Amino acid sequence: MHDIPPIAIPPQAGMERYGFAACAGGVCAAQGIEAAGVYAGFRRNPNRLDLALVAAEKPCVCAATFTTNRFCAAPVQVSRPRAAAGRARAVILNSGNANAATGDAGVEVALASSALVAEALGCAPDEVLVASTGVIGVPLPLEPYKTGVPAAVAALARTSEAARNAATAVMTTDTHPKEASLVGTIATSADGDPITVHVGGFVKGSGMIQPDMATMLCVIATDAPLTPSAAHAALLAAVKTTFNHVTVDSDTSTNDSAFLLATGAAGGEEICEDSPAYPAVAAAIHGICETLARMIAADGEGATKLVTVDVVGAPTASDADAVAFSIANSPLVKCALFGRDANWGRIAAAAGKSGVEFDQYACDIDLMGVPVLRGGLPLPLDEDEMLRRFEDPEIAIAVSLGAGDACSRVWTCDLTHDYVTINGDYRT
Amino acid sequence: MHDIPPIAIPPQAGMERYGFAACAGGVCAAQGIEAAGVYAGFRRNPNRLDLALVAAEKPCVCAATFTTNRFCAAPVQVSRPRAAAGRARAVILNSGNANAATGDAGVEVALASSALVAEALGCAPDEVLVASTGVIGVPLPLEPYKTGVPAAVAALARTSEAARNAATAVMTTDTHPKEASLVGTIATSADGDPITVHVGGFVKGSGMIQPDMATMLCVIATDAPLTPSAAHAALLAAVKTTFNHVTVDSDTSTNDSAFLLATGAAGGEEICEDSPAYPAVAAAIHGICETLARMIAADGEGATKLVTVDVVGAPTASDADAVAFSIANSPLVKCALFGRDANWGRIAAAAGKSGVEFDQYACDIDLMGVPVLRGGLPLPLDEDEMLRRFEDPEIAIAVSLGAGDACSRVWTCDLTHDYVTINGDYRT
Repeated sequence: MHDIPPIAIPPQAGMERYGFAACAGGVCAAQGIEAAGVYAGFRRNPNRLDLALVAAEKPCVCAATFTTNRFCAAPVQVSRPRAAAGRARAVILNSGNANAATGDAGVEVALASSALVAEALGCAPDEVLVASTGVIGVPLPLEPYKTGVPAAVAALARTSEAARNAATAVMTTDTHPKEASLVGTIATSADGDPITVHVGGFVKGSGMIQPDMATMLCVIATDAPLTPSAAHAALLAAVKTTFNHVTVDSDTSTNDSAFLLATGAAGGEEICEDSPAYPAVAAAIHGICETLARMIAADGEGATKLVTVDVVGAPTASDADAVAFSIANSPLVKCALFGRDANWGRIAAAAGKSGVEFDQYACDIDLMGVPVLRGGLPLPLDEDEMLRRFEDPEIAIAVSLGAGDACSRVWTCDLTHDYVTINGDYRT
Repeated sequence: MHDIPPIAIPPQAGMERYGFAACAGGVCAAQGIEAAGVYAGFRRNPNRLDLALVAAEKPCVCAATFTTNRFCAAPVQVSRPRAAAGRARAVILNSGNANAATGDAGVEVALASSALVAEALGCAPDEVLVASTGVIGVPLPLEPYKTGVPAAVAALARTSEAARNAATAVMTTDTHPKEASLVGTIATSADGDPITVHVGGFVKGSGMIQPDMATMLCVIATDAPLTPSAAHAALLAAVKTTFNHVTVDSDTSTNDSAFLLATGAAGGEEICEDSPAYPAVAAAIHGICETLARMIAADGEGATKLVTVDVVGAPTASDADAVAFSIANSPLVKCALFGRDANWGRIAAAAGKSGVEFDQYACDIDLMGVPVLRGGLPLPLDEDEMLRRFEDPEIAIAVSLGAGDACSRVWTCDLTHDYVTINGDYRT
């Protein structure tokens, strides 16, 4: 359309440089990890799995991050101090009931459910992490755990199918299970043989998605021999720029939890944050989180498009985040994308309302790689060409503020009639 | 349903206590103010008025507030310094084109349009304030002003019909003109006779509504003899808790402007901020702004419900605002209201994600005056009764955080299929 070059976007830190590649197995890709998904009775429909269990063969390193919502659910209250200890044996997750706004009774059920898992696995109750997702404010019954936990323990396996069942059992309005797994080779010491490590995981999340940290439950496992501190650092760093940069509807749940189990079953020397092998494992964990985060945005309630918003040229990183989220959360922008409308005016207005200081006449905008605004003024637009590009299931928005060097990437989706239908009819 | 009393909400400052009452006339209720609305040609459809003019018989006191969006439109750039001078003769407003992202050419058209008005009225160009609303990034032609301004000046009248035409000419996706007017009696001096003062105005605004200050153009006029400083103070105070507390979709426009003309035609002594008469006039201006703000929320794009969110018991006023806006901007809450779903869980989650610190077990929630949550735990809910109450066109949400004495009220609307339709099809 014209010869103006598109906005240059700095490459994101990726795991490709370390030679990691996709592999099969989901969360069970990690050696020493078994999974199961069964129907326990939290849902009325016996054809929908509703209890997931991920268990290590023996207690292993763990790390976790949780919702920052002041209304935090009972399982979060129970799991937070346990995860802080840095060691765990298993994670038990149910769907169909969030065990949120359930008071002391809810905490008791969360504790009792973990005790049932501990008994079945032969470990201490505080080595069991718990998570719940579903409707808020309805008492969570203990009853389904009494048959569900033994069934889940009996079904534990290290297979792709078992991993898939676990990923399926945590789904709510998700339209499909969301899994990813990677394999790579690293050296954990200068003189030892290289070891093969795996990182795999699953996530649920579709609506009520926003940092921190998206309405999501996520379990990631690796056989890399991470120390508790290294596991925590790698998970936190990955969540910060992936799950915390996804927004479907700017809403944050009461239950968000991400767990990382690190079995060390790959062998090799312990990996701490200073180890030469740490960046590779951290990049792989980041890669899994980014893949799962993009899946959440693409499967946003009612979504027809995955949208990536890149902001560059911001004064600071938090300014870049503010502008990117302002655009990604704008209902007007999201409706325009649903309507395949190259409406850069709404993108400019959303950037401008963010509270970040910049000069409108230094601002550039690209849509689907096509420069549409330069120096605050619109460029001629080939509407037919834009409509053709909007056929793509992925929409790319890039904004340069011309006010610094900081940048941010946020994922979202379009806002559609189906979002309103799903969320206007949820409970009734 | 139960005997638990509803949350106590402090009364808002109102004009009733000063004896103000509704009257006819819209913006023309104020003595010394004339208005007109004509078709000038900014729109293709000649049956839609698109040019509004509000003029004082002679230069008078003015005050104004404008968008804080960094992308601010040409008319805002022109009007801001002019309004700061505190005197004006007229406001010229067009719909159909926002004159935003139009660069130097846009500023030139805004200046030229005001020169045409000044010439026709016989005043200085910098006594004319300008405002535009409509599509962004399309050059605003001067041509329609050349015939439109003389036609508008010829049509100027002090009638309800003329006020209504002006209110109609600024409509975009508004479904009806939005006007209000009040009359009251005040004493401007201890020994003089009481005088009758009027405050009237109109507003446009439906989508892209959020502080500061809602996508809206507003013109208010009063015949009270306010000083420039008193006019500015009264407008600012009113806008702060009315237009800046409306959110339809969390989006802020590039063009938001509110103007106040104070002709002094009611007679009496000059009213400054220290005058005994000031609180009454300020309350009336607040009353007009609140009425118009509620009209904006009720007419939000696709809205079926006007929603009032009251937050009490917050640590600070800004905390109260943050929680109220977090609830009012939550797509999940707004979809639930569309679905007549008494989903207090989403309200609690929206309050909890606001970043404000409070104890979830000190939090109470009422829906439509019915206590639904006490101390963070749900109360038994009569769903049939709630469905019946949700038939009301006004939905009331009240949240008590139990963490202080500050409170906030925000108006919004529900999120519907029609919102998506309107904003997915706007430009195409």
